[in-house]
Amino acid sequence: MTIKAYASAAPGKPLELLEYDPGDLGPNEVEINVEYCGVCHSDLSMLHNDWQITQYPLVPGHEAAGTIGKVGADVKTLKPGDTVGLGWMSSSCMHCDECMSGDHNLCQSSEASIVGRHGGFANRVRASEEWVVKLPDGFDLKSAGPLFCGGITVFNPILQHRISPTSRVGVVGIGGLGHMALQFLNAWGCHVTAFTSSESKIAEAKEMGAHDTLNSRDDAELEKAANSFDMILVTVNVELNWNLYISLLRPRGVLHFVGAVPDVTAAIFPLIAGQKSIAASPIGSPRNIKRMLEFSHLHNIKPVIETFPMSKVNDAMAHLEAGKARYRIVLENDIN
Amino acid sequence: MTIKAYASAAPGKPLELLEYDPGDLGPNEVEINVEYCGVCHSDLSMLHNDWQITQYPLVPGHEAAGTIGKVGADVKTLKPGDTVGLGWMSSSCMHCDECMSGDHNLCQSSEASIVGRHGGFANRVRASEEWVVKLPDGFDLKSAGPLFCGGITVFNPILQHRISPTSRVGVVGIGGLGHMALQFLNAWGCHVTAFTSSESKIAEAKEMGAHDTLNSRDDAELEKAANSFDMILVTVNVELNWNLYISLLRPRGVLHFVGAVPDVTAAIFPLIAGQKSIAASPIGSPRNIKRMLEFSHLHNIKPVIETFPMSKVNDAMAHLEAGKARYRIVLENDIN
Repeated sequence: MTIKAYASAAPGKPLELLEYDPGDLGPNEVEINVEYCGVCHSDLSMLHNDWQITQYPLVPGHEAAGTIGKVGADVKTLKPGDTVGLGWMSSSCMHCDECMSGDHNLCQSSEASIVGRHGGFANRVRASEEWVVKLPDGFDLKSAGPLFCGGITVFNPILQHRISPTSRVGVVGIGGLGHMALQFLNAWGCHVTAFTSSESKIAEAKEMGAHDTLNSRDDAELEKAANSFDMILVTVNVELNWNLYISLLRPRGVLHFVGAVPDVTAAIFPLIAGQKSIAASPIGSPRNIKRMLEFSHLHNIKPVIETFPMSKVNDAMAHLEAGKARYRIVLENDIN
Repeated sequence: MTIKAYASAAPGKPLELLEYDPGDLGPNEVEINVEYCGVCHSDLSMLHNDWQITQYPLVPGHEAAGTIGKVGADVKTLKPGDTVGLGWMSSSCMHCDECMSGDHNLCQSSEASIVGRHGGFANRVRASEEWVVKLPDGFDLKSAGPLFCGGITVFNPILQHRISPTSRVGVVGIGGLGHMALQFLNAWGCHVTAFTSSESKIAEAKEMGAHDTLNSRDDAELEKAANSFDMILVTVNVELNWNLYISLLRPRGVLHFVGAVPDVTAAIFPLIAGQKSIAASPIGSPRNIKRMLEFSHLHNIKPVIETFPMSKVNDAMAHLEAGKARYRIVLENDIN
């Protein structure tokens, strides 16, 4: 049975309905009936071929939420009817050192959901069993999708650095990723500071969990916060004054990037003297996605979403590109 | 009683004998009768005022080894006759968050042994009790000094990153610091690779603990080692192709700097995709110096030294500056 999806034929072309034959379902694959799909800035980057890895026609969408329709012959952990999500990655080799260490997100033979294959702006999407994670019972399906890429991307560094609830953490950029980071870190018990240059986001950042805010582009204001953060999580993709941000870290602090900023340059002496570091990470492993979902369910953490019918996907992309999303767009499938 | 020391009066001036009155011994201070003092590249940098923090006359020397001569009224842990060492730092505030966490090396009010005070190229040197660490019984005094700065500087990252004996670690630059790192890491159980551009050091690097070597300036040779190191410890102070070095790290790997290289610039995508990081550190805490000394004693780890009489200190500095030291110079006190 063909899949109906929204595809772009070339860089800059709008998304148009495409029907494609997905072929036989692989023994380790599952097929998800997509009910919702979040829209991530990476979908825009892929549409524009910013990273030179896009294959056209491109069906974007890597924050899918829905129910399992079919499972392959060897699938062990999922069955038709299960409510699940699918994020940036759609399969890993399962046998390399990284996979065997539980770091499937670092597998160098992994497939991404929308690189060389068709994603979740569709009525159905397929992926390998290991990257399709069941939602906790009662989890809100409509807001689940954005957790599978934006959410896990900011949750992963909290685990990676074993952030303590007694830590002070800053979040730079209060958008699709940052607004979820505020919620996670607040529930984690941390003192949370939102760095934003948008006056309009200050009140909302506080509602979402920030204890205070700083203007990310006001050097004089930032300097007053010198030596006060254990981690600063950078979710923007623009260049800021990183040496200044490093000065805001306490000794042993880490400046952590999840956004695709240009090359990072830093002076070495402040890093040496304060035993500070610069780190970066992609999404997290399936096991950590599961941990994030359980934590989110317990603490009622949800992305703040705006919904568009999937048939209005081009309007949604324009809304995102204009910087107007507050804070994550979710497409609702109306093309069945 | 005056102290006899070798001092430089201005940038570029040779070291000449100086007698100075150290004043009363502070209640928390001890005075060390210097028997040996290692020579570190930082002594050269301070002599040249490379870091713009030198106060003249400058008495260099921050790898002193000797016996306690006098102790202040409130000193609790040391007594006259104890064999001890003193490194880069000479006091910490003991009360800030860093000191109270055991990270006295990260205290922002700490004093360095040769910044604004006189160091160990002298017959006696003073420091606050907490930074003067007793040697294990039977420890070789002549080779102890270099452990207190060069040694702890490369031992600290092994502790900081909780390096496992199953890790593969590279050491870039086989000099005063690097040759001690090879010994520590070999005794730690790691697979150790020495990165050097000196053909003449290859055989010696293997004797000191390297299981293999790579040419640090041969990009083609380095590329073959892609994706194979858990940590690469950079002890040089020159710029190398850091993006290439980052590609040699396995996922979760860290590129760690202890040398004062120029600004570090790195592309963000390889850091994100591999969850890799860039870190840096100064010397370690007094508690970790003690751990290092115990580990060194157990495993018979010693710097490889060349000795000069302290009265020939200018010859020693010239030898170091010419890049001829194999591998650490130690001055032997002959000015009592």
